[in-house]
Order: sequence, then structure tokens, then C-alpha cells
Amino acid sequence: MIRRYVFGSPIETDAVLCKPEAAVWQEGRLLLRDNVFCCGLKEDEIVYGLGQNVRGINKRGWIYESNCTDDPQHTECKTSLYGAHNFLILDGEKKCGIFVDTPAKVTFDIGYTDYEQMRIAPATPDFEFYLIEEESLDGVVSTFRKLIGRSFIPPLWAFGYGQSRWGYDSAEGVRQVAAGYRDKHLPIDSIYLDIDYMERYKDFTINEDTFPDFDRLIGQMKEQGIHLVPIIDGGVKKEDGYDVYEEGKAGGYFCKDADGEDFVIGVWPGKSCLPDMLNEEAGSWFAHKYKILLDKGIDGFWNDMNEPAIFYSEKGLREVFEKIDEYRTQNLDVDTFFAFQNMVADISSSPKDYGAFYHNYKGKRYCHKEVHNLFGYYMTRRASEAFEELSPKKRILLFSRASCIGMHRYGGVWQGDNSSWWSHLLMNIRMMPSLNMCGFLYTGADLGGFGDNTTEDLLIRWLSFGVFTPLMRNHSIRGTRMQEAYRFRSMHLMRDVIGVRYKLLPYLYSEYMKAALRDEMMFRPLGFVYGKDKLARRVEDQLMLGTSIMIAPVYEQNAEGRTVYFPEPMKLIRFHGGEIQEEGVYPKGFAYVEMPLGDVCVFLKENRILPLSKGGENVEEVDFEDLTLYCFGEKVQPYEYYRDDGESRVYDLKSGIRILTV
Amino acid sequence: MIRRYVFGSPIETDAVLCKPEAAVWQEGRLLLRDNVFCCGLKEDEIVYGLGQNVRGINKRGWIYESNCTDDPQHTECKTSLYGAHNFLILDGEKKCGIFVDTPAKVTFDIGYTDYEQMRIAPATPDFEFYLIEEESLDGVVSTFRKLIGRSFIPPLWAFGYGQSRWGYDSAEGVRQVAAGYRDKHLPIDSIYLDIDYMERYKDFTINEDTFPDFDRLIGQMKEQGIHLVPIIDGGVKKEDGYDVYEEGKAGGYFCKDADGEDFVIGVWPGKSCLPDMLNEEAGSWFAHKYKILLDKGIDGFWNDMNEPAIFYSEKGLREVFEKIDEYRTQNLDVDTFFAFQNMVADISSSPKDYGAFYHNYKGKRYCHKEVHNLFGYYMTRRASEAFEELSPKKRILLFSRASCIGMHRYGGVWQGDNSSWWSHLLMNIRMMPSLNMCGFLYTGADLGGFGDNTTEDLLIRWLSFGVFTPLMRNHSIRGTRMQEAYRFRSMHLMRDVIGVRYKLLPYLYSEYMKAALRDEMMFRPLGFVYGKDKLARRVEDQLMLGTSIMIAPVYEQNAEGRTVYFPEPMKLIRFHGGEIQEEGVYPKGFAYVEMPLGDVCVFLKENRILPLSKGGENVEEVDFEDLTLYCFGEKVQPYEYYRDDGESRVYDLKSGIRILTV
Repeated sequence: MIRRYVFGSPIETDAVLCKPEAAVWQEGRLLLRDNVFCCGLKEDEIVYGLGQNVRGINKRGWIYESNCTDDPQHTECKTSLYGAHNFLILDGEKKCGIFVDTPAKVTFDIGYTDYEQMRIAPATPDFEFYLIEEESLDGVVSTFRKLIGRSFIPPLWAFGYGQSRWGYDSAEGVRQVAAGYRDKHLPIDSIYLDIDYMERYKDFTINEDTFPDFDRLIGQMKEQGIHLVPIIDGGVKKEDGYDVYEEGKAGGYFCKDADGEDFVIGVWPGKSCLPDMLNEEAGSWFAHKYKILLDKGIDGFWNDMNEPAIFYSEKGLREVFEKIDEYRTQNLDVDTFFAFQNMVADISSSPKDYGAFYHNYKGKRYCHKEVHNLFGYYMTRRASEAFEELSPKKRILLFSRASCIGMHRYGGVWQGDNSSWWSHLLMNIRMMPSLNMCGFLYTGADLGGFGDNTTEDLLIRWLSFGVFTPLMRNHSIRGTRMQEAYRFRSMHLMRDVIGVRYKLLPYLYSEYMKAALRDEMMFRPLGFVYGKDKLARRVEDQLMLGTSIMIAPVYEQNAEGRTVYFPEPMKLIRFHGGEIQEEGVYPKGFAYVEMPLGDVCVFLKENRILPLSKGGENVEEVDFEDLTLYCFGEKVQPYEYYRDDGESRVYDLKSGIRILTV
Repeated sequence: MIRRYVFGSPIETDAVLCKPEAAVWQEGRLLLRDNVFCCGLKEDEIVYGLGQNVRGINKRGWIYESNCTDDPQHTECKTSLYGAHNFLILDGEKKCGIFVDTPAKVTFDIGYTDYEQMRIAPATPDFEFYLIEEESLDGVVSTFRKLIGRSFIPPLWAFGYGQSRWGYDSAEGVRQVAAGYRDKHLPIDSIYLDIDYMERYKDFTINEDTFPDFDRLIGQMKEQGIHLVPIIDGGVKKEDGYDVYEEGKAGGYFCKDADGEDFVIGVWPGKSCLPDMLNEEAGSWFAHKYKILLDKGIDGFWNDMNEPAIFYSEKGLREVFEKIDEYRTQNLDVDTFFAFQNMVADISSSPKDYGAFYHNYKGKRYCHKEVHNLFGYYMTRRASEAFEELSPKKRILLFSRASCIGMHRYGGVWQGDNSSWWSHLLMNIRMMPSLNMCGFLYTGADLGGFGDNTTEDLLIRWLSFGVFTPLMRNHSIRGTRMQEAYRFRSMHLMRDVIGVRYKLLPYLYSEYMKAALRDEMMFRPLGFVYGKDKLARRVEDQLMLGTSIMIAPVYEQNAEGRTVYFPEPMKLIRFHGGEIQEEGVYPKGFAYVEMPLGDVCVFLKENRILPLSKGGENVEEVDFEDLTLYCFGEKVQPYEYYRDDGESRVYDLKSGIRILTV
């Protein structure tokens, strides 16, 4: 059951496709006071949701803001990451979903100020508010997802393993990465190009010095079964003579300041302008520029810097330099010194700058801060819509850093610029179901960690979880330790682990597509499946993956195993040294399971089928028909196996699914 | 067995009191190449030690530097915290301790570059190197600890609970904190004064406006059974007419720059000078200033900013302002913008500044960077030595932020400026045994977390671990959420938890004193006790506390219990609602134990005695004779119960210990 309430004059986000009739607000469990929704939380009540954010699967005990933010320090004390996902579920006596549909900020105090109280505070009085009540948690999710529309479906090849780094700064460097993998028979399907490939970070350009004959490089990679996936930034370099800039300027496509002049910010190339992605004409103009790369044979993109990240605004920077002069002559003490240091640190992504430029959206002028969370969404949507026109038959891979609900229909998200921290591996695990609820199925984190130096064991453990996530990409920042799998002594373990992905692929793709086409989750917290099991509900580091298996990744350094909670009897399937080993059945309860580095373990439910392929060195090599069906139990249920060509834009559950039985 | 090796011409640190004859280096397991000691690490070999640093009890898989560092962001990617503790233990087939005795930096690559290799690289060729081989891990520790001398012993009252905050900025504010605790019958023994009490952050001054009649405040607090513990900073404000500065200047007591002028840095008060703590005359001069506060009735201090922290040097700041002018006119792109921002962020604690001033130590002039790790050590040592003279009969509480081995004889350490992060509660747990090995017994972390906003549940969980740590202090930074126990809805749970401390006190003090007087550890990893139990050796989140109990704190938000590994049968003693409940005996193996918020659980070993008192609202109220002895088993061993007057400086195991039996 859905109820929709309209408060004030909301700005349309297009998050919801088919809106139910608006109802008159009536107080129930939620009280509304001064634009804040409040309710008490029972002692054992769990609050799920909020997509991409910090902390647990259960969001209780912290305060969150939906406010797309470019902040790479994903520590527990943060309140926002790159996405704004205003959907949550109360798992109390009744199961209740809440969605706040607004492009502006919303604050969710979920037992932070008072552990037994929840407060939801939209920043403005203009928003739509949805309440969904269903019998089950899955039911709430499904109803919500039907409301917001089908999740993005990438091409099949995008389920292969990808290697990325900010720092592949020449065609030769890219070739070396490809060779590093192929020569050592480490499976791979894609290499990502970070900002290095562009000419001085200008969108839709190629650095001809370092990437001469880019088309040939693309072709060579294709021959090796490797897709090149370039990055596209949200800001366009302000440079006379640069055609994209000139066109944007002439067309009036850039966001304007209060005086109607193009708003100038600093990002990678230095001074830049922001295409008004929200505006249909401007966004579409920008989106059609992707054709430059599509025409070269590129079939996948990642959209970055689209919170939008603002290193500085021209005006903000000038003010800072002026204020610095005031500090020069002072005795800098505890107050003034840190004020000086913080002023320089806080130049970037400042609220002041977000209040200083304007969009032309659906025929009206809006200050950016009113519609902040739509920028990454619309950048990705415009591109996706252009791809339907430019590539009507073939799916194009597309995922984004910033997002909000609505964007899930147009692209995936990676989980932002994380760090090579064990705690971020755990965060990656926890974010999967939270994002799935909100419609983001194609997602994954930078395996091995983006910032800071990785370690060999962290990378292996992260890959061992990454084999399950639809987006499986190893990515890192320049200046840190290189983390391509072939660089390590235990490369053979990495080969084994990455190889598991390709064995799992038929199951993963089948589960992904069923989740997408049925508006379901691929990764679920245990509490969704075993809601009456008090211990299962508390589990924060294991996930149900599709209908057949549970996973329990290792995320602690030097661990050689871990305790696992079995909510029902399950059989251990162990991937070890390229082999698949069927081990014992664990009874309901806790057990310690040995998981040495390089082993990947999945736990098969009784009477369910896990189909596994023979694997391959890229997706094309995987034989989706030559499957081994693993199962145990007396009453094995048939498995609904979804397949399609992995490429065309026509999806049909009926024709795609066939039944596997043993 | 100890072997001592001397390389080059080491600078004496006085870490080791009684040196064995130097031996000639002979290669054994450790190879020495180009001033780097290398050895392989077996697959299941554990490396313990390094005192205060990030990551696990097992230090494998990361690279560490012994380099006292004022950096409050204690994330996994850091390599140094506030202390420099160059002792580690290899727990392979043989048990081998390694101590690098040097005041300069040492790098420990413990399986970072290669998981199977360890490399120890002193920054200079001048150092002493100790190898200790014993049959057991405890044996290695004991031999090392005898080498470095007896650990600091605080007064008994310092085992009580303390409340602290940077922000108690008036006598009235302090009185309110005291009343907040006493009125609500929340136990407390001390209130800490951060830099607020001083007149513009000048050491050994009192702000007469905000703390009028400071002596009366001290007296009032004493009447309530509360000790005031003021902070002392490592830097002295450079201000004409300020007597401490004038004396220091006149006496030539400050560290000098290359030209022989007083080296000027910026810290809390702005421009300041650093007393040459390493120099006996200068350090002693500074240490005798504590008398100003002792004479008022103060009997405890914490030494801060003594890495030493340098917000900026006068010269460094000038250079930054000059360089800023160069950035003004540029198009700030990815390279230049971050260079500008980082330059300002990196003003503080810069290696350049640490290379720009000089000490006069043991009759020689040393550049600071050569002796960096001695500053906090000697600041604390000089104070401690002065206290022996100024307070010969009564122990004075003293602990420090910066430290290195040697300082353990003169004071404790708090675990630095942590954050209100769940991961820092876990780090606190893990640091206890690591610090104990290195001689630091009087230690604890800022409960509830210093930086960032705490949550009610985090504070309760952290207090629930803090009841075990010798230093039990709740501390936070100004600008964050207030975290005094009486401010929360669940104050009754906080009362229960803090109350547990006072019930445990006879056992804790007895175990502390035995550990100190016998050169043992109070907190041990399970692997020290159950070395042949593969699973026990892997445990990173449970500790053995003294001879009788094991603890297994909860450190995850929303957890209502946790899995515990029992290496042998143990009985659960649960502190709940002010009561002590004896629960069942868990057999060897894993079990899930319910631990709701507010409960404190300890696990009693078979045939061991845990003596518990009736508790009290401060240490004085605790009756150390009215004990209940908890135990189970057929052959209960007598308990060695240590007591003394908790105040005098005479300690004697023989007269202090008596045997408790059931």
C-alpha cells in the first residue's frame, strides 16, 4: 500500500514514474511538526536504507544527510557520501517504507540525538512524501521499486573484471596493463581510463602526445577481449578555441551566476564551466558529445565529478586570497591559525558556491542548492537517453559517482573514492543491500581501495568479495602503490580469485537480471529472509546473494577464517586453487569457517541450486550452457535461470528464463 | 637470553637501565644489509608489539614508523601515532624480542612490501639493537621489561573514573560537571582541566577572570572527592613580561635555531618557545614550575603537545605566505590547486621545522630530528624526577601524549586524540597489550572519543571497555557533542557501567601492581596464554586481563551481543543493573553471548578467583577488604591479592601480597 503526500510546491525530480493520487496528511506513527517527521523506535527495531552512506546495514545510531558530496575521507563521522538516497525502511512490528522525493537536502536523525527517536527533516517545505506499507520487507522494496522504475541494465561484458587507475597516462601504459593480465592468464574484460587520457582534462578530447592513434588502441584492446572505459567529467574547461567550451558558451548551455554570466569554477583543468545537465537542451547537447567516443568503438563510460565537485569558484578563491592577507600580520594562535588553515581546506565544495549559480530546469530558474542532488542524476540520464538514440540496439555501460534516486534507471554507481582500508571493504559489503533497496543494482567499490596504499592481503580479500558485486573493478589513485593483480608475489591467488567471478557469472547475471526485471534486490540483509530469527537480523557482515546462496566475506587483516552465522543449514562451496570443493553442511547456529587467503567461500541454501560455469579469461569465454548445478537436500527446487544475448536492449523475463532442475 | 649490539655511535636514550656487555653482530635469522634488518616470516607467524600504533594486535601486513606524531586522524593508513615504541616480538617457532634503541626514526615493514618478509630500518646507522630469546612470549616480555625498568605507578585515586573536555572554560563550568556527577550518584574521582584554565594558554598560569580563586575550586572539589588534573603544554608562550618565558629566555633554556636564537614556533598561544626538555638544567627548571600547581593542592598532571606539536614555525609560516602569492595569479588546476591546499595543510609538524632547531643533550648539541622521539619522554621524566623531590612521600599522577620507551618509568600515556569512532574503540582494545609489552601499563583512550560527535551507544560501549583500563577517562574536544555521562537519557546505564569499575577496583589495582612490580603485562593477547591454540592466537578483539579473567568487549554499533572464543571453559560474570550475576560456564569453542547496552561481561577462568568489592562513588568509598570471591572449578587456586596504601612511593610485593582462598 502506497500513500503519497504533497507538501508545498515540490520541484519535480522525475524519480517517480507513475504517481498515485495525493492523499491528505494524517498522523499515524509519524508525527509532523515544523517540517520534521518524528517517530519513536522500538528497542529491536531496525532501520534499513539510505543507499550510499556510512555505517551499518542498520542505520540506527547516527545522523545522515542526503547531499551529494565529494569527500574522499569516508570515516564514520561523515553524514553524506556521493549519493543522495532518501529511501528507508522501518523494520518494526509493521514494515514501512519512507521516501522523501526532493532534489534538496534531507536530514535523517536515526537515533542519533536520541537512540529511541527518528527525525526526518527536509531542508525545504516543498517535497513529496511516500509511505509504503507491506507485509514483508521484500514487499516494501518491491512496491517502492515499481514506483521508481526499472533499474539500469548494463551489457553482459560489464560483469567482467576491470582494471583501473588514475595514472595510466599513455597508450603504452594501457597496453602494458593489458599484457600484464593476458600474459599471466589473469582474467580481465575492461581497462578504465581516468582523466589521464584527455588533453589537459578537457572532456571529449584525447591527448594526442600520450595516446596517439587512440582508435588503434581501442581496436587492439578489443582484439584482446578488453573494453576501454573512459571517464567523463562534469566540468568543461574554460578555454578559448576548445570546441566544447565554445559551443557551450555560444549555446548558453552553462550554469549561470546571479548576474547571468557563465559560472566559473576550478576543477581538474583549472577554470571550467558546468553544463546545465538539468536543462534538457543543454544536457542533451553535452550528452551527444559522447558520440565522439562511441564512434571510435567505446561502449562504456563512467561519469565523475558530478556532485558537482567544485575545487573552488573564481570568486571564492579571490576572497580567500584576500582574507589570507589579513592573517599575515597576526600572532596566529589556536583560533586564528586553525581558522586560516580551515579556510583554505574549506575552499572546496563550499555551500556558498552551491548557492551562487543557477539552473534552467523544466522551464524555471533554480538556484543550484535547491536542486543540488539532481546534477549527477541528470548528467547520467542525459547520456543514457542519448545512448538510446545513438546506440539503439546495443547497451552501453554507464555508471556515475554522484547519484540520487531516479538515476538508477539510467546508470550504475561506483561507491565513490574510497581508501585502501579494511574498514572500507566492510563498508562496501554493507552498502550493497542499502543501494539495492534504492534501485542501484549495478554497483561495486574500488577493489583494493582508491586512496592510500593497498596491501597484498587487503587486495586479495577485497577481490574475494568483489567477485560477487556486479561492478567488479580494481581502481586506485596516482601516487599510491600500484595494485594491478599481476604485480604481487601471490598473483596465483589473485588469478584463482578473479577466476571465481567467471565461474559465478551465469548465476550472477541471472540473479541481476531477475532483480532488475522484477524490481527486487540482488543482495539482501539476512533479516530480509530470516526476519523472525533475532540473531539473523543482527548480522551486519553477511549477505544473501540471490535466491541460492549466502556470502560471509573476510574483512579483517591477518584473519584466516571467521565466524559465520547460519540461519538455516547450509553447505559450504569452496573455490580453492581454481577448483570447486563441496564441503560439509553447517547446521543452524554459529560456526568458525577457515578461509585462507585466496579461497572464496559461498554457502548454499538447502534445496537450492547454484549453477556454476567452467569459467574463462573474459566474459566471452564463459560458456553459459555448460553448467554444473550444485545443490543438496531432499526437495531441490528448480532454479529460474535467466539468459539473454547480454547486449540488446530488449529484455523479457518470459523468454529469458528457463528452469534448471537436477 | 639477551644480546646487545651496538652500531655506530648511538645517542644514549636512557631507555635501558642496566646494559649487558655488547656482542659482535652475527647473522642468524636476521640478516643485516645496508642498515636494514631483514627476515622471512612464516605463514602463521605473528608479530606483536610497537606499542601505540594503528592496526591489529598482530602487526603483520603494514608498515610503521616510530616517529612521535601529532596527527588526530587515526585511520588505518597512518604509520605513526604519538608514541615511538621500538619493541616487537616474533611469535614463530622461537619467541624472539627485538628492541631498537634510538631516539631517531625507525621504519618497520612487517609484511607490507612482501607479506612474508619483515624489514627493520633505523633512519641512522647509530643505534643499539637488542635481541631477546626466551621459551615463552611472557618470558620475552619479562626479560625486556627488566631491561628497561619498572613501569610508572600512579596513586590509587587515579584508577577512578575521570571526566574531561576541552571546553570547561570556567570554575563554574567545572563545578557544574562535578554536580552533574555527584547529584546523580554517578561515580567519579577526577575532573581534567584542558587548556581553558590557563591565561591565554600560558603554562603555569591561571585565567583569573574565568577561574577566580582557583585554590578554593581545588578545595571544593577535594571535599567532593574529586581531584582536578590540569594539562601542561610542551611550548611556552613568547610574551614579554610572562615570568616563565622571561626566565627561560634569560636562562637560555629554550631550544635554539641554527643561529643560536630561541626557536619560535606557533602553538595554542601563538608564538612560543620550546624548553629544551632533553637538557637536564632546562628540563629541571621547567619541571620545577609544576610546584606552582602542586602547592595549590594539585596532585596530577597530563603533559600535552610534546611530540612536540608545531602548528608552524615563524620562518615556515613566512615562506608559506610568500609562496601563496605565487599561486594568486595562476590558473589553479589539479596540480597547482592541491599543491596550494596541501602546502597550507602541511605547515604543521613539518619535517623541515623538526630539522631547524637544536638541543643540548648530555653535553652535546643535537639537531632535533636526531633526537625527536625523546621530547615527550624527557618532558615527562623531568617532571617525574621533580615530583620525587617535591612530593617525596606521595605519588603524583602523570601521563603524557608523546612517549618513547624509557618514559614508561615516569608516567603513563593516554592513547592520543582519537575520534568518536567505533573503530577507535576497537583500536583502544588492541593497543592495550601492545603498550603493556613496551612498559606502558597506565594507559587508556579518550572514552567516547575525543574528536567528532559521539553517540549514546558508543559512549556506553566505550565505558563498558574503559572500566578495565587503568586510565579511565571520558574526554572530548570543544565544538563536539557534550559527552558527560549525566547528559544522556540512559544515564542509569552509564551509572551501572561506571559503577562496575569500582567493583573491579581491588582486582584491577592488584593486577596492575603485580604487573608493574614483576615486569609483566596486565592485558595479554590470547595467544600469550593459549599459544598452542591456533584459533586463540588469531583472536584480535578479546584480551586476558590479569590472571583470572578474559574480556570480550562489544565494539559494533547496534550489536546486542557478540561471538566470543573460549580457549578453555569459562564462567560468565555479568554486571547488570548494579547487580552481579553468575551465569553459565561456556565450554571451549565459539559461542554467541548476549550483551545488551549497559551490561558488562567478564569471563572467569576455571579454578581462578575474581575478587569484587561492593563498589562506591569514588575510590575512597571502595572497601578493599569487603570482597566477594567469584570462582568455579574443583581445584581453585589461591589468589595473590596485592594491596598498599595507594599513595606512598614504597612498594613491596612481599608485604603487599596476601593470599585469598575459598
